[in-house]
Amino acid sequence: MINETICALATAPGGALGIIRVSGPQSLEVLSRVFTKDVSLAQPNTIHYGHIKDGSEIIDEVMVSVFRAPHSYTGEDSIEISCHGSRYILNKVLTLLIENGCRLANPGEFTQRAFLNGKMDLSQAEAVADLIASSNKATHQIAMSQLRGHFSSQLAQLREQLLKLTSLLELELDFSDHEDLEFADRSELLELTKTIDTHILRLSHSFETGQALKQGIPVAIVGKTNVGKSTLLNALLKDDRAIVSDIHGTTRDTIEDTIDINGVTFRFIDTAGIRQTSDTVEQIGIERTYAAIEKARIVLWMVDEEPSQEELNKTCLYADNKKLIVLRNKIDKSDNQPFTLVKIPLIEISAKHGQGLSELEQAIYQAANIPTLQESDVIVTNTRHYDALTRAHAHLLRVIDGLQHQLSGDLLSEDLRLTLDTLAEITGGQITPNEVLGNIFKNFCVGK
Amino acid sequence: MINETICALATAPGGALGIIRVSGPQSLEVLSRVFTKDVSLAQPNTIHYGHIKDGSEIIDEVMVSVFRAPHSYTGEDSIEISCHGSRYILNKVLTLLIENGCRLANPGEFTQRAFLNGKMDLSQAEAVADLIASSNKATHQIAMSQLRGHFSSQLAQLREQLLKLTSLLELELDFSDHEDLEFADRSELLELTKTIDTHILRLSHSFETGQALKQGIPVAIVGKTNVGKSTLLNALLKDDRAIVSDIHGTTRDTIEDTIDINGVTFRFIDTAGIRQTSDTVEQIGIERTYAAIEKARIVLWMVDEEPSQEELNKTCLYADNKKLIVLRNKIDKSDNQPFTLVKIPLIEISAKHGQGLSELEQAIYQAANIPTLQESDVIVTNTRHYDALTRAHAHLLRVIDGLQHQLSGDLLSEDLRLTLDTLAEITGGQITPNEVLGNIFKNFCVGK
Repeated sequence: MINETICALATAPGGALGIIRVSGPQSLEVLSRVFTKDVSLAQPNTIHYGHIKDGSEIIDEVMVSVFRAPHSYTGEDSIEISCHGSRYILNKVLTLLIENGCRLANPGEFTQRAFLNGKMDLSQAEAVADLIASSNKATHQIAMSQLRGHFSSQLAQLREQLLKLTSLLELELDFSDHEDLEFADRSELLELTKTIDTHILRLSHSFETGQALKQGIPVAIVGKTNVGKSTLLNALLKDDRAIVSDIHGTTRDTIEDTIDINGVTFRFIDTAGIRQTSDTVEQIGIERTYAAIEKARIVLWMVDEEPSQEELNKTCLYADNKKLIVLRNKIDKSDNQPFTLVKIPLIEISAKHGQGLSELEQAIYQAANIPTLQESDVIVTNTRHYDALTRAHAHLLRVIDGLQHQLSGDLLSEDLRLTLDTLAEITGGQITPNEVLGNIFKNFCVGK
Repeated sequence: MINETICALATAPGGALGIIRVSGPQSLEVLSRVFTKDVSLAQPNTIHYGHIKDGSEIIDEVMVSVFRAPHSYTGEDSIEISCHGSRYILNKVLTLLIENGCRLANPGEFTQRAFLNGKMDLSQAEAVADLIASSNKATHQIAMSQLRGHFSSQLAQLREQLLKLTSLLELELDFSDHEDLEFADRSELLELTKTIDTHILRLSHSFETGQALKQGIPVAIVGKTNVGKSTLLNALLKDDRAIVSDIHGTTRDTIEDTIDINGVTFRFIDTAGIRQTSDTVEQIGIERTYAAIEKARIVLWMVDEEPSQEELNKTCLYADNKKLIVLRNKIDKSDNQPFTLVKIPLIEISAKHGQGLSELEQAIYQAANIPTLQESDVIVTNTRHYDALTRAHAHLLRVIDGLQHQLSGDLLSEDLRLTLDTLAEITGGQITPNEVLGNIFKNFCVGK
């Protein structure tokens, strides 16, 4: 209910400061019951120093920021209380606000209200969560582009073209008994429809890149035991999270960790070595290796001696339709000889001494084949959007098919309307069912 | 250097929002280089919406709060930037501020500047850190009292009395050759000095309570293996952090955890059972039990059958000068019979079924013997303050001794001056050496 006044901690607990957000029609009234300063007539966007009190007990010395509808994040009267970051204080202030008429906000409820009050469309609201979750340049840029409305404006453009198409077809329909009138050429209509569809497909195809960037590009490190996989992983992570040991088969768990290269996150999958073994735990490790390769987009194959043709064939088979990077490790060893039999491009490294690592990182980045993003580029990262785009494409395919088979306009208009409605789901231009809204905002953090 | 402009993240990373603080003479100038809105002429205590930009790249949509000297936390021109709580964004904004003329703040540097600019005294500055660290009602109340200046005003009162004493002695000194003049009676001076000393002692004696409240009151749970210590601890913690098992000697590590009772924190020390054993790991556990009892203020002795007189004597010996609470566990068992030999008050519980737990909690609270705190009560929690009070007491003892032995005023005035100086260290009324300031603020969190 949008007439309720909600409150939540908007910052993570544990810092010097904690910010408690309040939004809704009773914001200032609730505040007046716990704050020592009268801000009922305060100018919007002003800050006020005072005490939060529970009866006569001073809970904290705080700064209160006052925002007034519609010029606030939510579009409602809102306040933000900047408290000392003690858990006791933050809990106590929230409790006081609840006792005085607020209700604790649901996850994402502030942003949901911003959407319901027309401050942003649904895809922009979703971009807020993505922006907060962004951990590198690429995901930040994609979320910011979406928040700034670049995706929305492409959707608006598609909508305009679809409406034009609809009106042309309706025109044809209205005057269909006037055989002597000239209408838009059907081949022109087909051309326009295909252009729209190409645009929709370009957006939906960007989802693969979007997912990879959002979740991190999966990289599997494979190779015989003791070839130095853990050492390499540690060197790349500049951290000691994997167990490094000289004992064969030490690394038994599939450990995942991430590093950033040129602003893109790569998810490394450290695995047990590929070899025949009777050790049960080790056996599980090997099964996981295959699973890891299966999930990977890039496979790093580490060798420290020349592989046989059979090994090479086998690895290429496993890494089929992946990017395979062959690494020769331990190049610091004195018995280091050039490989003679196997003529494959390889990167030479010493994981132990950190040699060749930046060359390797650049090779990994190249293998990921990430397009260079411009500020206004739209990359679809959201499954809901991808789903809508896929369905819109399916509807539009029926229109194209109909146009090619000379179906009459009234038979095509239904699919055109479905295409429009489906695209409108993304921005919430249609009335969005509460259930859908609930699903969208439940994964937000509380306080946003 | 106070003419540098400093910046830091003031909230914990990971929330919906992150607040970056900037303070110093160039605050607004630095901001102007990265913020899209001109706030150079903005009214103090106002909030401004705009973008943080790195060249043409938009880093975030933010709200900037503008504070102007001397009406800010630090007493300097300050700004606070409310960003989306993404680690990438927060790092990027901090990096931008540093590239444009800020330096990353040291821990506590904002509060240190508030002290140096006369916004608060040193004991109040220290209370800020205590307030942020406060995790329960008791520690919150003590820190808030200190921040509000109740300790400072008691010290000011002591200072006034000491100055009065000094002037009376100086008067005596100046006119000491006029044997016919009446001076303050030496016994009156002695009375006044003793009153001052009693006050100082009361403050320094509160340190024990202060320490206990700050660190949590240590409670040891002891008893034979399998008597239900882990189960009790888990029931109290309402959590499963200790290993619960029916196997004798399962709990081998000393696990510490805390619960709050009536706003006071108790630190439970779960230990291996006290029994003879040949198991080495178990043996370590038993040694730790004795160490745990040694460190405890309250000992919970759990039994599930009537202890022998010997066991009773032994436990009382170990728990000498501690508060001992005897717990009879497993009262839900059908073979439950009243104890006949040992006539000691005991609390009957079933740790497994949660019976008797609130009675036990109240018994623990009573045993801690915590005074009921009033809002303006001063409890010393800081080792630096305790140290100064202890030294001030020592100086004053020499004054008392001198007065009792009819030493002349000029011999007493040096110790009086030392008492005054030592008390002034607490509030920083004297010039405080940089080294001392460094030690005080180094334990603050960054951003405060």
